[in-house]
Amino acid sequence: MRTELAESPDVVERLLVDARPGVEAIAAAVRQRDVDVVVIAARGTSDHAAVYAQYVLGARNGLVVAPATPSLSSVYRTPPRFDRALVLGISQSGRSPDVVAVLADARRQGALTVAMTNDSASELARAADSRSDLGAGPELAIAATKTYLAEVAAVAMLSAALSGGDAFAQLAAVPHVMRVALELEDDVAAAAQTLADDDACVVLARGYQYATAREWALKLKEVTGLLADPYSVADFQHGPIALVEAGFPVLGVATSGPALAGEIELLERLGNRGARLIVLSDAADALALGAGVQLPDVPEWLSPLVAILPAQLFAYHLALARGLDPDAPRNLTKVTRTT
Amino acid sequence: MRTELAESPDVVERLLVDARPGVEAIAAAVRQRDVDVVVIAARGTSDHAAVYAQYVLGARNGLVVAPATPSLSSVYRTPPRFDRALVLGISQSGRSPDVVAVLADARRQGALTVAMTNDSASELARAADSRSDLGAGPELAIAATKTYLAEVAAVAMLSAALSGGDAFAQLAAVPHVMRVALELEDDVAAAAQTLADDDACVVLARGYQYATAREWALKLKEVTGLLADPYSVADFQHGPIALVEAGFPVLGVATSGPALAGEIELLERLGNRGARLIVLSDAADALALGAGVQLPDVPEWLSPLVAILPAQLFAYHLALARGLDPDAPRNLTKVTRTT
Repeated sequence: MRTELAESPDVVERLLVDARPGVEAIAAAVRQRDVDVVVIAARGTSDHAAVYAQYVLGARNGLVVAPATPSLSSVYRTPPRFDRALVLGISQSGRSPDVVAVLADARRQGALTVAMTNDSASELARAADSRSDLGAGPELAIAATKTYLAEVAAVAMLSAALSGGDAFAQLAAVPHVMRVALELEDDVAAAAQTLADDDACVVLARGYQYATAREWALKLKEVTGLLADPYSVADFQHGPIALVEAGFPVLGVATSGPALAGEIELLERLGNRGARLIVLSDAADALALGAGVQLPDVPEWLSPLVAILPAQLFAYHLALARGLDPDAPRNLTKVTRTT
Repeated sequence: MRTELAESPDVVERLLVDARPGVEAIAAAVRQRDVDVVVIAARGTSDHAAVYAQYVLGARNGLVVAPATPSLSSVYRTPPRFDRALVLGISQSGRSPDVVAVLADARRQGALTVAMTNDSASELARAADSRSDLGAGPELAIAATKTYLAEVAAVAMLSAALSGGDAFAQLAAVPHVMRVALELEDDVAAAAQTLADDDACVVLARGYQYATAREWALKLKEVTGLLADPYSVADFQHGPIALVEAGFPVLGVATSGPALAGEIELLERLGNRGARLIVLSDAADALALGAGVQLPDVPEWLSPLVAILPAQLFAYHLALARGLDPDAPRNLTKVTRTT
């Protein structure tokens, strides 16, 4: 896990070159067909790349993004009408039958179908009209790290191909910033140490970084056994905030952008109630709230490509601090085939 | 909370009559405009009525349902293009500014907009072209119960108006089945007692009942302080299953339908690993897996209107068993206004 997550900047750097022609072709097809809805089938870590897509394709490309409910294809066999949508399957292995079933239904209906997968010979790749190969190389650790970065980068590239402007130039600078983020490892390990004896926490963010909160929480569940519950800053206040009592750990991803002020306000309120705050942020007033790790600067729409690296390192070091082997999580296998 | 949840059968019975003309008019507008995508803005409990909509409108009406990301309207001010969609706002109070902002953007773009709210004079009601009033009467308990039932019923009515056939006849039988479900209270209270000393659990379901799992988990968080994490049976296997060790409580909603066999298989596997299972089900082989509460029969697409009642009662009795007042949850107020 530690080795593979450190490969992420190289993976993204390579992807930005190799996947460009394919992504431009997909963008051209989206424009030609006047698509305004994107349906995404994905599970686990890949589903968090889909969460990122909801924000980036919505805010920067005007597209409505609907997460697929794969059981409507694989179990109920009553899929909705996808024919005017772009239907995207995202999967490291390309082998989960439920995700493949959505793409197969969509293609049968005549929808534009695209597979983003790390295995270009997989069932998912074969089920789609077009492929965007992630090219992350073999991922052996059970907890996905570099393939998540490749998936998020591929979604960002699709957005860039649709928006034009200087989006690709901004993307080109990201691998360097990712390398800077990896150098935060000592700070991250020290912050992780403080949760060595906890059972549960929540992970909060809003907007683009909501995907990071979801993926951070999943990594914590997978490799540390900590019951980490992710919430958008807004949803958290509609009920789950009842969980917070003195000493409860609250992790926040709070980076610069229109959502930052509201998030700082909530974190401050939780801190005043005695919550133990750990914040990943590029903003001094967010970092002043509690234990923090200072992230390097990057345009907000690309910030999930940077913030997840310290979050993954945090899960890795917390597993070690809890006496667990992050490369051998309980109950999991690398490829999960759900129907 | 106890009083209001017991009013749910009457609320639904009344809604089936009073809301019918409005729902038929909305269905006619959907048909006339050839809408194939529904965007839903909702928070907290109301968001779980939106989850139900993903399944029922997808499976029975062929519609793609996209949960809105309200911050794109309220915080980023870069909404996607909604103009060919039905945009639905669901909110008990009708007063959360982020949900109102989505409807306002959608109306400005010329989309078909509908408000489902319990306050027909609210900002949300005024922001939409059409209203479907929930008519649940005043809800004073902070944890929403009867208004959730009204929201789910209103969504089911919209599906029935779109599908025709005997859907409304099936719906008409539901209030009676709900009354039968309320009589399960003693069984439910006994099952709830077994979690009096736990800190965390997961709640599993698939398909239509995934909405019930989400809402059950939220009620547990709100009134009992138990960190209850809801998952679809498929998503759970893509990572979070790593949490389950001997003694870990697993709650399941497992009712008859195409997804049942896969859910029983997973629950059995978790039981073999020592998980403590509590199952709400109408099926003997699911109930045989552990502590169970036997639900009355109802067509699968309407089963979320029945299964949530014992789930709400479970949360109520678990709060009492933990020495908490379910009518005074920590940190919460009745109306949550997030921007």
